Amino acid sequence: MSSDKLPPLAWDTLPRPEDVDAVRAIVHSTGVFSAEEARVAGDLVQETLDGTEDYAFIFARTINKKLAGYACFGRIPLTEGSYDLYWIVVSASMHGNGLGSEIMKRTEQRVKNSGGAAIYAETSGRADYASSRKFYEHLGFTEAANLPDFYRKNDAKIIYVKKL
Amino acid sequence: MSSDKLPPLAWDTLPRPEDVDAVRAIVHSTGVFSAEEARVAGDLVQETLDGTEDYAFIFARTINKKLAGYACFGRIPLTEGSYDLYWIVVSASMHGNGLGSEIMKRTEQRVKNSGGAAIYAETSGRADYASSRKFYEHLGFTEAANLPDFYRKNDAKIIYVKKL
Repeated sequence: MSSDKLPPLAWDTLPRPEDVDAVRAIVHSTGVFSAEEARVAGDLVQETLDGTEDYAFIFARTINKKLAGYACFGRIPLTEGSYDLYWIVVSASMHGNGLGSEIMKRTEQRVKNSGGAAIYAETSGRADYASSRKFYEHLGFTEAANLPDFYRKNDAKIIYVKKL
Repeated sequence: MSSDKLPPLAWDTLPRPEDVDAVRAIVHSTGVFSAEEARVAGDLVQETLDGTEDYAFIFARTINKKLAGYACFGRIPLTEGSYDLYWIVVSASMHGNGLGSEIMKRTEQRVKNSGGAAIYAETSGRADYASSRKFYEHLGFTEAANLPDFYRKNDAKIIYVKKL
């Protein structure tokens, strides 16, 4: 799909119970993340449904209600205007059509509306996360820090930031 | 007090209900942290007492059961051996007697025993946090990252690390 072929989508900010598994499935579909990471991504939806946490979401759904992509974000505690983008994921079947940029644009708008000044994102420095880093750079993030051996030996944490 | 004058202390790893307020009081006593930060420090004790979170603690108590200092730490999710030192605080009345180093030594030992390889700590880059940064440096931490304007404009986040 080229970027002029974004299919018709329904946008939603409130999670539904079926999103817990749908999120795990699209995180898994990218081929980048571990089973634990996919589980955690679903947990953030579940915790928001439960009311134990209060993450913000943007869901893009196809006309037949399939999850095409989503973002999960929230203000970082003790900061005035810094937000963490915990997840931004596009289903593997939708890669390359500009959906990631559209989700990011809507995320930035909501963060700005809430007085946000910067969005942070963290990922791994490992070779097999190259597509994840490239995705953040494509979305306008720049590297703010590199913490060697953070996740485990030879697995750095890269902190990205996008100032709004 | 000089470093050879550490008073007799009782060491404890389990929080007691009275620690919620005692922690807020000693965080406040340092004169470095905001009221919100002191409240949050106490919340971490409360959440562990409630069982909603599972932070690790080291408490140093005087013979008359007053809280002299403490550390609050935990493994960072999705990491193999990285730990966050959320708080390490010595009551203002006990500053300069080596208690901070003793709390840190015991924290490192417990982190090592659990297979930890590094301890991270975060603080502000603001001028009025200079004593906090100096304290971390005194405890053997080195600066790993500096995120400008993180907490608010002209208030950077400094990430410290101590490799074990």
